[in-house]
Amino acid sequence: MAGKATKLFSAWFCPFAQRSWIALLEKGVDFELVEIDPYNKTPEFLAVNPRGLVPTLVNNKKSVYESLVLNEYIDEVWPQQPKLMPSDPYDRAQARIWIDFISKKIIPQFYLILQSQEKDQQEDAKGRFLDGLRTLTSAMSSEGPYFFGKDFGLVDIALIPFALRFDIIAHYRDFSLPSDGSFDRLKVWKDAWKSRPSVTATVAPQDKMVAIYKRYADNSAKSEVAEAIRKGTALP
Amino acid sequence: MAGKATKLFSAWFCPFAQRSWIALLEKGVDFELVEIDPYNKTPEFLAVNPRGLVPTLVNNKKSVYESLVLNEYIDEVWPQQPKLMPSDPYDRAQARIWIDFISKKIIPQFYLILQSQEKDQQEDAKGRFLDGLRTLTSAMSSEGPYFFGKDFGLVDIALIPFALRFDIIAHYRDFSLPSDGSFDRLKVWKDAWKSRPSVTATVAPQDKMVAIYKRYADNSAKSEVAEAIRKGTALP
Ligand SMILES: N[C@@H](CCC(=O)N[C@@H](CS)C(=O)NCC(=O)O)C(=O)O
Ligand SMILES: N[C@@H](CCC(=O)N[C@@H](CS)C(=O)NCC(=O)O)C(=O)O
Repeated sequence: MAGKATKLFSAWFCPFAQRSWIALLEKGVDFELVEIDPYNKTPEFLAVNPRGLVPTLVNNKKSVYESLVLNEYIDEVWPQQPKLMPSDPYDRAQARIWIDFISKKIIPQFYLILQSQEKDQQEDAKGRFLDGLRTLTSAMSSEGPYFFGKDFGLVDIALIPFALRFDIIAHYRDFSLPSDGSFDRLKVWKDAWKSRPSVTATVAPQDKMVAIYKRYADNSAKSEVAEAIRKGTALP
Repeated sequence: MAGKATKLFSAWFCPFAQRSWIALLEKGVDFELVEIDPYNKTPEFLAVNPRGLVPTLVNNKKSVYESLVLNEYIDEVWPQQPKLMPSDPYDRAQARIWIDFISKKIIPQFYLILQSQEKDQQEDAKGRFLDGLRTLTSAMSSEGPYFFGKDFGLVDIALIPFALRFDIIAHYRDFSLPSDGSFDRLKVWKDAWKSRPSVTATVAPQDKMVAIYKRYADNSAKSEVAEAIRKGTALP
């Protein structure tokens, strides 16, 4: 394991890994991106993360994983600007409440829309996905453009990789944000980060993305996420 | 809403609320315990927490909820000893990884053991529950007695209310920790906190507890947790 002291084990298609990649770029951390195939778990990879999931960060020989935990770690261990979490404990709690909401109410529905093979199940999942997005949108600061206003941070980063994949759902399942006004603030939010360097640097070509999500859309994906959705258990 | 500036909305039977009750007692916070029925959501309660779940803390008119988020908030906003989270960012990330593990791998199985009506599903859930506990146990510091060693903290608190309910599973489903040695460290852990004042003060009488969990054991509970288990979606 020569090379830089800080390595991010990542996979180009993984929305969870993308969260931590964006966070490291925002903080200006000097790190090495190690592209791996997380479905082919090598002994070297399992040695750094026994759970075998990307993202995994190795920093001075110590591993941290779980994208949301990792992103708080990145913000804490590199305390330079920009701060990705608010400094006030109450605001920090609000950030964590909404990050938790994204994990529980929005992301499982993203996968359900794709993996469901029956039209009515897809529509139910879409309904719940939009409900979740609507609730989150109404919690966004009114001045904008980011969740907390002018400061970009971890709530934004938790959702961005999935917002970047709205087009994937649109490709396979005919999806768009209703133009009834309730998503106007979400559109302002999307426009605000779409050309941020930390985001654009992490985006894969659209045709490659569409192709790799086919296994979700035909429900043949073998990942832990896909299995959890099929079994109705908590996402990994 | 007269009374103390800090109020915990709680329900005596709720393991999530118990987490935050224990945390407040550990920190020696001067607070008022407001016992409510979270299934009967009054306008007053929905005004402090639109999601309508206990625990909810109101502190100087601001609300924080989600037991795990709330417990970090309690530790941060009352910075006095004891510190319930480690001060080093890496150790803090480890604490969060294991708290997340408890939420995803252990707690859903607790409810599945109770709610499953078929013997083989109960046994499967028991197997996964014990696997999760075994993995957690092997991550505990070897010196003990607590998860991180001599310091009691939020990883311990995340699991205690459920460990206190092993007897409930035993009552309804014939359950015990295997005595094959792999749970010895967990037994040391249980013995260490069982007479801690912050824990004993929050424990309800065993017969009342057994009685209230009947609705889980016959799968008639109407709570959001019970519905999520039935539908195979993320716990609230
Ligand atoms: N909860 C994890 C989920 C990470 C995850 O599921 N990563 C996928 C790739 S997108 C993975 O490594 N999968 C390997 C597998 O499923 O075996 C996080 O937030 O980091
Ligand atoms: N994720 C929440 C779960 C809290 C929860 O489910 N509390 C239950 C009581 S044990 C509740 O308030 N239920 C009301 C309902 O289901 O409507 C937490 O950790 O605080």
